[in-house]
This record gives sequence, C-alpha cells and structure tokens, in this order.
Amino acid sequence: MIDFEIPAETAELAAKIRQFVTDEVVPYEKDPRLTQHGPTEDLRRELVAKARAAGLLTFQAPKEFGGIAPSHLEQAVLFEAAGWSTLGPVALNCAAPDEGNMFLLSKIANPAQVAEFLKPVIDGHQRSVFAMTEPGGAGSDPGQLTTKAVRDASTGDYVINGRKWLITGANGARTWIIMADLEGAGATLFLCHGDAPGIVIERTMDTMDRNYVEGHGVVLFDDLRLPPSALLGEEGEAFRYAQLRLAPARLTHCMRWLGAASRAHDIALDYARTRTAFGKPIGQHQGVGFMLADNEIALQQCRLMIWWACWKLDQGERGRHESSMVKSTVSEQLFQVADRCVQVLGGMGISDETPVAMIFRDIRAFRLYDGPTEVHKYAIARQVLGR
Amino acid sequence: MIDFEIPAETAELAAKIRQFVTDEVVPYEKDPRLTQHGPTEDLRRELVAKARAAGLLTFQAPKEFGGIAPSHLEQAVLFEAAGWSTLGPVALNCAAPDEGNMFLLSKIANPAQVAEFLKPVIDGHQRSVFAMTEPGGAGSDPGQLTTKAVRDASTGDYVINGRKWLITGANGARTWIIMADLEGAGATLFLCHGDAPGIVIERTMDTMDRNYVEGHGVVLFDDLRLPPSALLGEEGEAFRYAQLRLAPARLTHCMRWLGAASRAHDIALDYARTRTAFGKPIGQHQGVGFMLADNEIALQQCRLMIWWACWKLDQGERGRHESSMVKSTVSEQLFQVADRCVQVLGGMGISDETPVAMIFRDIRAFRLYDGPTEVHKYAIARQVLGR
Amino acid sequence: MIDFEIPAETAELAAKIRQFVTDEVVPYEKDPRLTQHGPTEDLRRELVAKARAAGLLTFQAPKEFGGIAPSHLEQAVLFEAAGWSTLGPVALNCAAPDEGNMFLLSKIANPAQVAEFLKPVIDGHQRSVFAMTEPGGAGSDPGQLTTKAVRDASTGDYVINGRKWLITGANGARTWIIMADLEGAGATLFLCHGDAPGIVIERTMDTMDRNYVEGHGVVLFDDLRLPPSALLGEEGEAFRYAQLRLAPARLTHCMRWLGAASRAHDIALDYARTRTAFGKPIGQHQGVGFMLADNEIALQQCRLMIWWACWKLDQGERGRHESSMVKSTVSEQLFQVADRCVQVLGGMGISDETPVAMIFRDIRAFRLYDGPTEVHKYAIARQVLGR
Amino acid sequence: MIDFEIPAETAELAAKIRQFVTDEVVPYEKDPRLTQHGPTEDLRRELVAKARAAGLLTFQAPKEFGGIAPSHLEQAVLFEAAGWSTLGPVALNCAAPDEGNMFLLSKIANPAQVAEFLKPVIDGHQRSVFAMTEPGGAGSDPGQLTTKAVRDASTGDYVINGRKWLITGANGARTWIIMADLEGAGATLFLCHGDAPGIVIERTMDTMDRNYVEGHGVVLFDDLRLPPSALLGEEGEAFRYAQLRLAPARLTHCMRWLGAASRAHDIALDYARTRTAFGKPIGQHQGVGFMLADNEIALQQCRLMIWWACWKLDQGERGRHESSMVKSTVSEQLFQVADRCVQVLGGMGISDETPVAMIFRDIRAFRLYDGPTEVHKYAIARQVLGR
Repeated sequence: MIDFEIPAETAELAAKIRQFVTDEVVPYEKDPRLTQHGPTEDLRRELVAKARAAGLLTFQAPKEFGGIAPSHLEQAVLFEAAGWSTLGPVALNCAAPDEGNMFLLSKIANPAQVAEFLKPVIDGHQRSVFAMTEPGGAGSDPGQLTTKAVRDASTGDYVINGRKWLITGANGARTWIIMADLEGAGATLFLCHGDAPGIVIERTMDTMDRNYVEGHGVVLFDDLRLPPSALLGEEGEAFRYAQLRLAPARLTHCMRWLGAASRAHDIALDYARTRTAFGKPIGQHQGVGFMLADNEIALQQCRLMIWWACWKLDQGERGRHESSMVKSTVSEQLFQVADRCVQVLGGMGISDETPVAMIFRDIRAFRLYDGPTEVHKYAIARQVLGR
Repeated sequence: MIDFEIPAETAELAAKIRQFVTDEVVPYEKDPRLTQHGPTEDLRRELVAKARAAGLLTFQAPKEFGGIAPSHLEQAVLFEAAGWSTLGPVALNCAAPDEGNMFLLSKIANPAQVAEFLKPVIDGHQRSVFAMTEPGGAGSDPGQLTTKAVRDASTGDYVINGRKWLITGANGARTWIIMADLEGAGATLFLCHGDAPGIVIERTMDTMDRNYVEGHGVVLFDDLRLPPSALLGEEGEAFRYAQLRLAPARLTHCMRWLGAASRAHDIALDYARTRTAFGKPIGQHQGVGFMLADNEIALQQCRLMIWWACWKLDQGERGRHESSMVKSTVSEQLFQVADRCVQVLGGMGISDETPVAMIFRDIRAFRLYDGPTEVHKYAIARQVLGR
Repeated sequence: MIDFEIPAETAELAAKIRQFVTDEVVPYEKDPRLTQHGPTEDLRRELVAKARAAGLLTFQAPKEFGGIAPSHLEQAVLFEAAGWSTLGPVALNCAAPDEGNMFLLSKIANPAQVAEFLKPVIDGHQRSVFAMTEPGGAGSDPGQLTTKAVRDASTGDYVINGRKWLITGANGARTWIIMADLEGAGATLFLCHGDAPGIVIERTMDTMDRNYVEGHGVVLFDDLRLPPSALLGEEGEAFRYAQLRLAPARLTHCMRWLGAASRAHDIALDYARTRTAFGKPIGQHQGVGFMLADNEIALQQCRLMIWWACWKLDQGERGRHESSMVKSTVSEQLFQVADRCVQVLGGMGISDETPVAMIFRDIRAFRLYDGPTEVHKYAIARQVLGR
Repeated sequence: MIDFEIPAETAELAAKIRQFVTDEVVPYEKDPRLTQHGPTEDLRRELVAKARAAGLLTFQAPKEFGGIAPSHLEQAVLFEAAGWSTLGPVALNCAAPDEGNMFLLSKIANPAQVAEFLKPVIDGHQRSVFAMTEPGGAGSDPGQLTTKAVRDASTGDYVINGRKWLITGANGARTWIIMADLEGAGATLFLCHGDAPGIVIERTMDTMDRNYVEGHGVVLFDDLRLPPSALLGEEGEAFRYAQLRLAPARLTHCMRWLGAASRAHDIALDYARTRTAFGKPIGQHQGVGFMLADNEIALQQCRLMIWWACWKLDQGERGRHESSMVKSTVSEQLFQVADRCVQVLGGMGISDETPVAMIFRDIRAFRLYDGPTEVHKYAIARQVLGR
C-alpha cells in the first residue's frame, strides 16, 4: 500500500543523528585537519570518538556487530540525516569506502577474516580500502585489469604486482581488499593489512573532492606476497562480489549527498532571505527564487527515487537497474542543486566561507565515481530495450 | 511506513482500465472525428457508451453517484492507466474540464443544482465548462477579471457581461460554471445551461492541443440574465472555490499526461528496437539509447512525485505547495519525454503516423494551463522563503 | 580581416525584402489556404505574383536566370529577412525544397534539362520535389535505399519501383528529382514530370509543420518508366550530388528559420511589454525577462554561426563539418527560442492567435529534417576525433 | 563587409604567444607555487621574466608604454592564445585584475599618477588591485557601498574606513585603486600604495578558483589617510569609471577563459582518442562523442560572440548590452565545456593529473565575477524591453 510515512522510530533516530551532526560535527568543518586531501586520520578519530560517546557509531552494522541492521529504506532516512555535514558520515562510520567494504566483508569474509579485518573497521579503530581502479582503466570497464596475481607453486602464496590509483583512503588504512587478475582464474579479491611489505603508497592525488579520509592514493603492488588465507571468497569471483557491493553502495552515496545538498539549499535559503540587492531580499527576485524552487523540487525528487530503489532492494530484488537509474539522476540533479546554491551565494559561493563550495566540488566528483552517468545510462538503455 | 506497493484491487482495476483503453479506445485515435479542434461531441458519446458498457464510466465519482470514490493515490494509478490513450479519459469521463467540474460541484452545489447540473455530467450525458479565463488576463493573475455581474434590483436577477476565451469544451456543453466580478461582492461563481440566451459562442480557437472535446471557445456574455438560484456557493467566494478545485485538478492532469507520455515512450522503444541505421537497431546507438534512458528515469520520477502529493492530500492537507511542485516539474519533464520520443522517431515523429506528435503538442499546452511553470515556481519560492 | 558590417547594398535589399514580407506576405498568414497541410498551390501562386510584381522573385538565382547570384553570406542576410514570415520564402521562391533543387539542377542538369525542368521552377510557375526519403529509412542512413531502378535492355528505359514518404510538395509538383538504386550502378538521380504515368501520390501526411507548399506526400513509383534522357548527372552518383545540395540547403534552412524565430521573439517582446500581471508588465518579472534575454542571445549566436559557415563556403570550402555544426546548434537553439516565446505568451501561445505556435511546430520539425541533431553530432564527433 | 579572416600579423603574433605559452608556461602548471591561493608573487615574477625575455610582456599596453595597442578584435585573438594556460595571462601581464586596472588608469590617471602607479604595473614590476567588493554587497548592486571616506577639514586629507573582501591580488600589490563613499560626493576612486598605514590585509580567502596571483583577500581600511593627490579622476564618479573598465574587462575575461576551455577540450579529445572502454576508443561511444561535438560547437559560438562584441567596441560603441550578452552566455557555455571535459576524463577528470579540474573550478568562479549571469540577464531583458 503506497505510503510516504517515515516510521516513528526511524524518524526519531534520524532526528537524533541530525542533532548530533549539527551540534558535534558541523563545527569541525572549519578544522584545518579537513585538508585539501580530505579529513586526516587524526580528525577522523576525534569525530568517531564523539559518535561512539553518543551511541551512534556504525549504526548501520548488522546486529551481531552491535548495529541496528536497518533496512535499505531506513538507511535512506538515516544516511540523509548523517550527510547533513560532509563530515557526518565520517564521524558515524557510515562513509565510503568503509561502509561498502563493511557490507561486502559481512557477506563474504570467513570468521577468521571477520575477526581480523572487519571487526576493527566496524569499531571505528581502523579504516579499509577497496583497491580496484587503475590508471589505464579497470573502473567502469572491468575488462582492463592489469594488476596480476600469480600463485607461487612452492609456497602456495599469491604474489601481486601492479599499480592502482584513486584508491580512497589508502594512506593509513589497515584493511585492504585488493582486486587482481589471478592467473588461470580471473579477477579475484584478496585481503591483507596495509603495512604488508610490497604495498607502496606512492602519493596522494590532488582531487576536486575533499571529504574522503586521507584522500585518494596511488598505490604500487610490488611483489606483494600474500598467504593462501588472504583469498577473499572464491577465486575468479571478484566482479560478482564487486557487483554485490555496488547497488547498495551507489544508493548510500546518493543518500549521504542528498543530505549534503539539502544543507547547501538551507544555507542558500538563509542567504536569499537576508541578503538584499536592488531594494529587496534577493530571494524575491525571480532569478534567485526560481533557483530555490528548482532546488526544492529536485531534492524531493531525489529523495523519492532513492526511497523507491531502496524499497525494491528491501523486497529482495537485486536492484541493479533501479540503482543505475537512481545514481545517474540523483548525482546529476544534486550537482545542479549545489551549482545553484553556489550561484545564489554570489562571490561568497566560490569561497569556503560556507561549506557550499566544498559540497559542490564533492558532488562534481560523485557524478563520476561508482560509474559515470554515461555508463549508467547505457546500462539503463540496454535494460529497457531488452524488456 | 514508506511503501510503494500498489494495493491489489487498485492494480486490478488499473489493469482493467488499461486493457479497455488499449482494446476499445486506441483504435479511435485515427477516427476523423478526432479533429484539430479536439474530439467531437459525437465521438465522445460513442466512446462514453463503450465505457458505460464496460462498467468503467466515471469511476472516480463519489459513491452516492455510483463511483468508487478512490483516494487521491488510487486516482493516481487509475488515471495514469486511463491516460494511455489521450482519448481514454474522454471515454471514461475523467477528462478535463469535466472531471474537475464534477469535483467542484460535488463539494459546493446545493441539492437542486446537483440534480440539474451535476448528475447529467456524471452520467456522461452532458458536458460542463468552467468559464474563467479572459483574453486580457484573469488566468494566472485573478486580479484582472473584467467579466462583470450586476444585480437587477427589481427582479433579483444577475446580469452578466464580458468575454472569455480558452473556454474548454464550450461548444455544446450544457453545464456552465461562470466566474464574474459581482458588483459589491467580488468574484463569484454562477451556474447555468449553455443554451441560456446571452451566451454567444463566437468561435472555436485553433490551438496546438487536440484532446479536449470540442476544443477551446471564445465566448461572449451579452446581458446573460440568471435567476438568484444560479448563484453557486456564496457571493464573492469564486477564488476560494477555484482553489478548492485547483490542487486536485492539477494532479489529475499530471496523472493523465503521465499515462500518455508512457505510451509515447513505449512507441519510441518499439521503434528503437526494430528500426536500424548504420548497421544496428537505432536504440543501440547511445545517442538514441540515452534518450530512452532519460525517459525511463523521468517517467518514474514524475510518477513518484504525483504519488507523494496525492498522499499528502489523502492525509488531509491542502497540498497547494506540493501540487505546484508536482505540476511544474511533471509538465516540464513529460514535455521533455514527448520531445525525445519525437526525436527518436525521426521524420515519422513529426507526423500523425503515430500518436506521439499529438501527445507532444498536447503536453506543450499542459505546461501552460492550470498555471504556467513560471507562476508555480514563483509560488514555490515564496513558500520556501517564508518557511 | 574580421568584420561584422553588412554591405550597404545587401542591407538595403534585406530591408526591401523585410518590408515586402511585412506589408504583402504577413497578411496572408491568416488566409485559410494556409492549411494544416501547408500553403496550397493556389495560395503560393498568389504570393509569387506579389513577389514578381515587386521584382524580388527568386532573387537568389544565378545571374543567367535573372537572379543576383548572392554569395552565401549575402544569402544569410537576405534569407533571414525573407523568413520573417513563414510564407515569405514561399512568396519569394526561396523556400525548401525548391530552393535546394534549383541549386542542384543549376549545378548538374544539362541544357535541355535546365530548359525543361529548372527554368519553370525559377520563374515560379512550377514546383519541384526531391524524392529521397523512404518509410523504412534511407533518410539519415542512405544505405537503406529500397526504391529500385532497372534498365530495360530493349528500350534503354529506366523502370523505377518503390515507395517514398515525407516527399515535400509532391502534390502538384511538376519537376521531380528521384533517387533510386540503379541495378549495377548504385544510387542514381532521375528527372521527370510529376504527371508521368507510374507516379502515384497515395496521400498527404498529417504533420506537425505547416509551411511547405502542399505538405508532405506518400508516393508510390509503380513501374515508372523513364527515357535515357531522364538520367540526372551520372549513374551511381546520387549521394555525391545529394551532398552537393546538402551543406548549402542546411544553411538556407537555418537562415529562414532564424528569421521566423526572430519574428516570434518580436511578438513575445511586444506582449511582454504590454500585458500586465501582478501589477506590472510581465517582461519586468525576471521569470519572463530572463526568457527574453536568452532569446536575444540565442538569436545572435545563431546568426553568427550561420554567417561563419557561409563565409567558409564562400572561401571555397565544402563546409560539411561547419554546416553540421551550424544545423545542429541552430535548430536546437531556435526551437528553444520558439518554445520560450510560446511560454511568454501564456494560453495565447498555444493558439493560432499569433503565428508563434505555428513557428514552434515548424521549428520542431526542423530539428529532424536534413539530418536529426544526433546524426550531425555523430559526424562532428568523428571529424574532431580524426583531426 | 562580413569577414572572419584573422589578419596575418595578428595570426602570427597569436601563434607566437601560443608557442610561448606551450613551451615556457605550461610546464609551470605543476609548480608548487601555483597554490590553492593562486600563483605566488614569486612564481609570477619568474613567469613575467620569461615573457619579458620573449618580447611579449604586456603586449596589450598603449603604444606610449611599449605595447602594440591592439584593437579589441585583435585582443580577442591574442588573449585567447594567452589563455591556453591559465598561467599564460599571468606571464604575459594581461591577467585580471591588472589588465583592467591598467586600462582604467591609462584612461583617467593624471601624469604623476601614471608615473607612480601605472608604469610599474605595465613593466610587470608591481601588481595592482581594484578594491570595490564588500562582504555585505556592493558587488552587483553598487548602492550598498559601506566603505566611507571623509575629508579632514584641517589637512584636506581623505580618511577611509571600511572592510572589503574578494579583493583579488591584495596580498603584496603596490598599486591600489579603492572605491569608497565620499561624504557629500558619493562613490569615489582613490589611488595609493599597498603599504600605506591603515591598509590591513586580514587574510586570504579559500576559494574555488586558483589562478589569480595571491588569491583573494579580506582587507580592512582602518583610518587610511590619503593626501588630496590620491583622488583618482573626479569625486563622485567612481561608478562611471568602473563602468568604463567593465565592458572591456568582461570581454578580456571571456577571451582568456575561451583559451583555457579550448585547452581542456584538447586534452579531452586526446584522451577520447586513446583511452579505450568496451573495446573501442571512448570517443567512438556516442555518449562521449556527443560531448565532444557539443564542446566543438560551444567554443566556436563563444569565439564568434566575443569577436562580435569586440567589433562593436572597435566601432566606438560602449558595448554594455553586447558585453552583458557575451559575458553571460560565454561564462555559462565555457563552464559546460569544462564540465564535459571533466566527465570525459572520468576519475582522472576530478584530479589535478591534468589542468582540466583546475580550469573547471576557475570557470565556475567566472560565472559569478564581473556580475553573475542573473544580473546580466536582467540587464539584457530591460534593454530589449525598452527597445
């Protein structure tokens, strides 16, 4: 039965999260540890401690790990609240890439791997990376994986060589999920610690976005030798696992950025009410007012699209098609929202006097990660043509 | 609790309506009585007879009039099904302006007026008009009403003079709701028969849209003399009543055009699957495929926005703000859908070989009636700024 | 040396044309002979007589045929002036398809063909058609030509069979250029009279546009038998000849529609200055004002793009790439101009009270003929990638 | 006579500039002195020395100062070439704000002021600022100037108090043009050295753009006392002078960013030719190819619009309307170009591996400075309505 009522307990928790973010997290947006390369690990630990104290840390975890195991729909409401500050998900430990990595590991890691690699991430003590993307491709088109793993016949060890980039949070992360092309088996996932000899973090890239802890690294795997126990799931199944992670991860991105874009809209609204030009508040000029109206509509559209896809997932569907529809339209629409907020703020909009410029930059990047809009549209087209 | 499940009985009725429209109505789209001035009254009667025989006529009516009194949300599902052909709502008697007029009269007409003016419209035997719009304005800005009513002191009669235009269905309609500026009272609604002396239908306008029965007329009120019983509701309350009609009428428009745009998309999809160019089906060219993906997304967004506003109304809210949001975005998005369908069809898209060109033209008009997009955006902006 | 000065004599002639169109042609826009299937032949003859009397008929013809043989740049200025009314080019005999056909015939017809087929068209006594497009394709992708010509070994005659559609002006035209796939030679052009046995005009299509004389026909070639002298140019060269016609024909389309869109803008401006809403002229509301500003910019951009491509052609370049750039952007931008004009006019915009709705409909079609936007963008992309 | 031929000597100089920028300037784009706050003064001096050695420094200066005094049209060609690298105009000393300040001072400064304040800027030894914008407004709407100047009756000195922000290049600049509201006279310009007591640079703002030397400062005027000789031009004429500077300064911005956007397009093209996905170069996927085609068209449209407005100025017109048209459309279109280039580059597009992300950020800012798009559209609308 079609209904848009948010369940009371979800609404309450969302309000609590929003209050926490507003009171405890927003002040950190001016902290110098929120650098051009993202929040530092030091800042992250300070934020995580706040969330832990508030009893909100990693709320989305499965119940056996102390979370409330929210449905996808509940996540939609809660992650939007968390996203009100770009640092909110960092504090609450529901930010990318950890959130998606925790999801994946909870599905496919064995008990020993859970204890060693997943548990510390859920507890907020460590961070994780998903090392897939490569300079020459291997992002949207997985057929181009050049990082190679070979089996050492004498020891049974896997030996990995290759270079990855845009590896989010690489610097200082302890739980590494690595995708490599295993000789004879195809794309395979491996699990290891970040201080393993053979993992060389060559540099942190300068990027437009600023809200991934420790930014995005360029990583060299130089004869990285891993024991047989490092195999994550089964050999040759990396893309199936990555897909498993993908649909929900796309949606949680959308939720968080919906929260951030709503915040930008709120800031633009405040400004449009109080700043005057040519004798009246600028919001009363239709040129500005129409931008605010467009934002109001776009935010609601995005929210409904996210909820709808989440409902599909909650019904047990895989949701690949729906999550492609949602990711492509939400990322584009939220970018337009952020762009209009910058424009409403005028000269101030391009400065860091407000978080709007930062949100704009991050959402620009969002249109590219987890598959650029064009790749999603192509997939949607094939799906509807084949119907 | 957020949910997107269509209740089973609504889904069944929608399927029945869609089947009826597909089997019984679609063939009439090539009937010459679907003229450039809309379907003729003759064609309407033939279509209505089909719906009556199928037991589907005026399904949306209040129960006391034989309808099922669907909630707004149920209407959203059912009207979309009806709109699959632009003639569907005509056949089912849920087209504009009758549908909105029936809604209004069921709210404010007295029992005698109901019997004389409303009942025959519900039964599909007569049509109705809402005579508000004037050449000099009085559409979006009601402050410009130049049609005047005066009270004849000797008889108590109202005497009305003025000119209206874009009066949908004027030609041949029997139930007339007339808005005039009553001396000393302000804008007031009156109710009379279309053959009353003093109502002169000067001409039918040539317009881009083609799906309102008998098109849009220019009407002269030349000393139209009405008895005291012709007063509809109370004096001076015309705009309040018009508002009452407005929010739901905007939404039913959106529902019907969503159905029509979905049909256009379906036709474009079929074409994209079968027509080849440069060695493959044109849908496999991304230039076409992306348009289809955009349509798929837009249709779902529009559907969700409509559902959400309906749910608000079902909760007892007035929904002015929500219906403005929905009307402005849905009309613009569906126009883009129709435009892309025309483009996908190539040269055929601008011809009446398919109904797509007609849908395109009608939805272009939809961006203007019930308030142009700009008027809605202005209202939305004021609302959010005042929040 | 970069310069934007229109030469004095061209400016004078343009002013004269504009005056002629305003005084003599515009009044015919309400003539009932401007039907939904375009101007009738009867109306055309009446208009042509006016232009002949004014000494302006077929001004663009080569000098040996009495024209002034303007350069492409001069044409840009003059055709824009002619396009101020959609009937202007019809009157002046510089409308499609005759204008492009005259251009082509003047390049490749032999003297006998010129006398018999070209001269009467230049003189405005007859019309011409270019029969290429087919229901199954053969528009943008010429590889799909299904109309076949075979050589009768005994007589040397060509015998043509096939069906064409969207054949502009077919009804009543006397000079026919027919493209058919000649056995053993490939696509070939033929020239014949419209009353040749074997040419069957099955019907005139109902289309969105309304300004091509006698509209667009569906034509059957049923054993159309033509003598050897009917060969136009050389066998197998049809596409090369079609290309020859294409770049300039695309540009003259752009010029004429630029004139029409300017007219729509002018009408919208007048309306925005005089019509009031909420207490002031609607043009002073930014929602309307910004649309007018966008139109002002778009019209100038289109004009400059057209001039630039013309200049390239005048330098002796083929201009395929430039004309694709210009056609795709100009058709899309002028459509937006027309769309905004409709929107500014409100309810009146969708009616034929002004020519704006008609211009809107015609320019919608313009985005498809002479290659839809997508086909041009594909060609542009290939060109720049190959650079 | 309409012509698009670039004069040979201008083309040669442009080629020389482009070569200089490519060979000498581009390598500095990775220099760490190109900070988040713009190029440092140190980097600027190094670049300027290169241009001086190449004989290209301040080529746009009046002849009496050693420049070639190019017409506006010639500037269009030359500045586009200079803009190929965002550091190009810095090296050549034709970057904002110095370029506009030099223009203004050459028009209104007296000989003593020229010697002291203008000459060293032209020679590249010093930088200049134009201190107008204030936190509370005074940008687009000059009626809000809160920086006040009073005349000290005893000494004749002017004493200035107030706060400015977004003051480009404030840090380290020696030539200051200050706008203040002079008691009894209105907005007035003053000229002084940056080390004058009373000028306090409070901080450099963090902004999205990165290509103004020393970034944008917040400045406090704390009893800044200036002698009568500090008056620039006449009292109360500040806005007239600012306007004088405005139209050409807007256009030179457009020229430089056209160069930068062309560069971004060139980088995207190279990438689209070589990077493969799903089995072919990504440029051959229409999703990417269409973006490249759109860029190709947009760049040419912008170029023509700039040339046209320059030609108007060269004819002696003030060009306010034309420069508003050009600034608003060029800034919006170039932003779309840069945005598409980011998208084509995928993940790399949001990183500083190429200059595209930086160009994207700078052009985002360009949509706001020198009047946001909305202010220009409002002005254009008023102009056309008043026509």
